[in-house]
Amino acid sequence: MASIRPQNGRTSYHSAWQFTRNGDPNPKPKPPSRLSFSSFANSYSVPGTAAASLSASAAVADWNKPIVVVGSANADIYVEIDRLPKEGETVAARTGQTLAGGKGANQACCTARLAHPTYFVGQIGDDAHGHLIENALRRSGVRLDHLARIAAAPTGHAVVMLQPDGQNSIIIVGGTNMCWWPEAVRGEDLNLVRTAGVVLLQREIPDRVNIEVAKAAKNAGVPVIIDAGGVEDPIPTELIETVDILSPNETELGRLTRMPTDTFEQINQASKKCHEMGAKQVLVKLGSKGSALFINGEEPIRQPIIPASKVVDTTGAGDTFTAAFAVALVEGMTRKDCLEFAAAAASLCVQVKGAMPSMPERKGVLELLQSLKFRRDHASL
Amino acid sequence: MASIRPQNGRTSYHSAWQFTRNGDPNPKPKPPSRLSFSSFANSYSVPGTAAASLSASAAVADWNKPIVVVGSANADIYVEIDRLPKEGETVAARTGQTLAGGKGANQACCTARLAHPTYFVGQIGDDAHGHLIENALRRSGVRLDHLARIAAAPTGHAVVMLQPDGQNSIIIVGGTNMCWWPEAVRGEDLNLVRTAGVVLLQREIPDRVNIEVAKAAKNAGVPVIIDAGGVEDPIPTELIETVDILSPNETELGRLTRMPTDTFEQINQASKKCHEMGAKQVLVKLGSKGSALFINGEEPIRQPIIPASKVVDTTGAGDTFTAAFAVALVEGMTRKDCLEFAAAAASLCVQVKGAMPSMPERKGVLELLQSLKFRRDHASL
Repeated sequence: MASIRPQNGRTSYHSAWQFTRNGDPNPKPKPPSRLSFSSFANSYSVPGTAAASLSASAAVADWNKPIVVVGSANADIYVEIDRLPKEGETVAARTGQTLAGGKGANQACCTARLAHPTYFVGQIGDDAHGHLIENALRRSGVRLDHLARIAAAPTGHAVVMLQPDGQNSIIIVGGTNMCWWPEAVRGEDLNLVRTAGVVLLQREIPDRVNIEVAKAAKNAGVPVIIDAGGVEDPIPTELIETVDILSPNETELGRLTRMPTDTFEQINQASKKCHEMGAKQVLVKLGSKGSALFINGEEPIRQPIIPASKVVDTTGAGDTFTAAFAVALVEGMTRKDCLEFAAAAASLCVQVKGAMPSMPERKGVLELLQSLKFRRDHASL
Repeated sequence: MASIRPQNGRTSYHSAWQFTRNGDPNPKPKPPSRLSFSSFANSYSVPGTAAASLSASAAVADWNKPIVVVGSANADIYVEIDRLPKEGETVAARTGQTLAGGKGANQACCTARLAHPTYFVGQIGDDAHGHLIENALRRSGVRLDHLARIAAAPTGHAVVMLQPDGQNSIIIVGGTNMCWWPEAVRGEDLNLVRTAGVVLLQREIPDRVNIEVAKAAKNAGVPVIIDAGGVEDPIPTELIETVDILSPNETELGRLTRMPTDTFEQINQASKKCHEMGAKQVLVKLGSKGSALFINGEEPIRQPIIPASKVVDTTGAGDTFTAAFAVALVEGMTRKDCLEFAAAAASLCVQVKGAMPSMPERKGVLELLQSLKFRRDHASL
């Protein structure tokens, strides 16, 4: 792997590679795995400003491998209207805003903000919405070497018609998210996948692409997390069996299993059903009820929410949770600490409007976790 | 006025300044007005590739003054759907495309393509849709020195939901077209208006801006054309009385006068009502029935359509007609030749899909007019 250089003068992308070793001309990798949160929090510096290049030996350490997000990139066109127009009618919106989004791009943005080296493998069109996404990803520090630009189709976009009663109607244009993927995933993309610390998937691109990527990762011993969000079709068994962690929210869990998910016991049973369907681990996002990780044959690990001082907008909170869990996982935290890290990131996310704009920096997450630890230590005295 | 230099290596913008005088180091302006079409067609070269700067004396000749379009710039977000979504529902579009539009930007694009020096005075946001519009205008050769970029609001945009029965539902976000205009129009914009050969307005920006611009133009002796398209509110009397030409289509004419516009006599009567309302000249676009110019106290001048070999998409045809009429007017053609020039431009427009992409180059319009003249001359032998 080539040495890492600053892009556009930004350094947040590099901070995870740097840790406390800024200025060390010959850095040594840390022990590869199973750090507890406390050692994790102590050994990671807050993103700094100095840039350092990495030796090849450091780059191959597990915890230091990049996260590779393969998925969708979307322009989300929000319009606030009093009511939907009828056929043939023109209505004026109160206001509107177009933001970069898509579950893939959101999650890549989040892992990069959390200062873990991140590549995004996806497709955009050669249009204004494509440029919007490209700029948003670049600003967050995502590496774009594997972002394909397709001239023949529009960038994926969605018109989100926000109505006063909170009932949102949505029109989705799949565009380059759904079309024009090569018949076989590009060799250079699969090579990247094979060198990843973890691969993150979602369900807003064709299943066949996800399956091919998941298989390449599995064969290379790279863990794969799939967020169940996206299209509502059943997940192909081939995909469920290939990935390591399936991450639905409670609605998606209910849809996947056709089982109720109102109580924790029901969620437990539905997760067992997922195990039967081939999912080794099920990471369930439960909104205000927190989250839980169900590992086949083990006791569930539960994580309550970390209360936010104010809840402004929950958009992107699920993507943030999954992405932050992936960061903690690749960086060697225990499963319990992974859940807490993800909960902290989600807690910060809901305090800011929007998806990408609300995704927290690593510094904020670590500070929140340290303040929680301080309170716990203090309470136990 | 400063000398004109090529922008971005494009020269189409300059061709009107050049005419047949390329390479002449000391060009003389042509006689300022009332050229007939035949002298017009003969004296204008097809847009060339060489660039030349103009002496100040040439720049002040009437026919050579720029067209100043003050108006809207919009991102038109087209989505093709089988049916409108219900409240809370998500539907997949067959496809989608986002194009630069807005009546102001369309008309500026058209006059620039017709090789007349054109300035656009308008507002865009600092967002992807703003960049889309800026690039589209620049590509057509429009001068953007007076395009304001407003960070505080989104670029105006419209979601056009195309349905199989041809019933389109539209959601309009006014954005920077309707908001954040300065309390008084910027001095440099009014100075530009005062030096124009003609000013083109429409009704997609606040009336108060149009009124201020129209008054500045009138006081400087600059003719003003207002296209009646845009908001459906009544046009303020102050605005109608200030402009020189009011240009509605037959639907707009009916709405403005609350009179029927089904027959030519009805249109004649409705135009008389416009005269009573203060409009000196009324330029009515009648779709497949052609067009007509009603000058107060004179016989109407009628212009049939110039049949297109195929009608692909009439989007932008009205904007093309008004803009082409303005080009012919400022370049000194007779009213009758202005109508024919505009009809030829509109005939070429309807043969190509989209608004901006369908606006013809000067070369195409002149060739069409020459072929018509040849046929007429031949028929009269």
